[in-house]
Amino acid sequence: MKRTSLNDSICPVARTLDLIGDWWTLLIVRDALGGIKRFSEFQRSLGVAKNILSSRLKTLVAEGVLDIRPASDGSAYQEYVLTPKGKDLYPILIALGQWGHQYMFNENETCSYAVDRLTRQPLAAMKLRAQDGRELAADDIQVIPGHLAKDELKIN
Amino acid sequence: MKRTSLNDSICPVARTLDLIGDWWTLLIVRDALGGIKRFSEFQRSLGVAKNILSSRLKTLVAEGVLDIRPASDGSAYQEYVLTPKGKDLYPILIALGQWGHQYMFNENETCSYAVDRLTRQPLAAMKLRAQDGRELAADDIQVIPGHLAKDELKIN
Repeated sequence: MKRTSLNDSICPVARTLDLIGDWWTLLIVRDALGGIKRFSEFQRSLGVAKNILSSRLKTLVAEGVLDIRPASDGSAYQEYVLTPKGKDLYPILIALGQWGHQYMFNENETCSYAVDRLTRQPLAAMKLRAQDGRELAADDIQVIPGHLAKDELKIN
Repeated sequence: MKRTSLNDSICPVARTLDLIGDWWTLLIVRDALGGIKRFSEFQRSLGVAKNILSSRLKTLVAEGVLDIRPASDGSAYQEYVLTPKGKDLYPILIALGQWGHQYMFNENETCSYAVDRLTRQPLAAMKLRAQDGRELAADDIQVIPGHLAKDELKIN
């Protein structure tokens, strides 16, 4: 099935999902953030078919989320490493993980955690905040279409 | 193609993606957060095939992300409204939108914005933070597998 492309949407959520909305893509980024670098390691971690993994890695490299570099141990393997653009996907993954921990796990289930290396404690909950630091609820937020935002916010 | 299910993964990111990792699902939630309630409105907004929309809405209701209720205007239509679990997906959407705004738009392109209703200004950037409020970079974070987390963090 051909997907509708949302790459020209004025909504930044839609445009991001057009790139990373694939089920495997964010799991590849998750694994890369966890230190996985090689094709065979991604494949073992994800249990995904080689052709799918290959195509997703290619897209992520083309989009500047991953870089390819020679293996750090001098072997013939290639390594995939996150660019700054790729590392900036971390808040999305943490938000997904925190929601999942709250709603998709029972109390007694084993759940992996993202922790601060320094204190070994789970990260703070990702909160919606105004510029002045006030915490916002869903009902405090409004989405302004792009052409109106341009006028109202004096930004593009 | 049958998807591998990650519903029993110990990773809360994977388990969340198993539910909402579909391309359309988060856009339905986005529209619901924006006030869209009816099938025909979702369809118009998303331009998605009726059978796909119908199946995604059904899943979201079954998973407790959306509730069905009679139309508020007394007509025969049903309305889909977000549950608290559904509204709690907002941080994920804002994180996706902020990343998209930064990396998927050129300077002069029109981009929609989520604003604080009170000040009419865009939300603060979603930051990764430790419990004590320190801002964390990707390299400051480590993911601990569930069985180790149980011992180290004294939590499940």
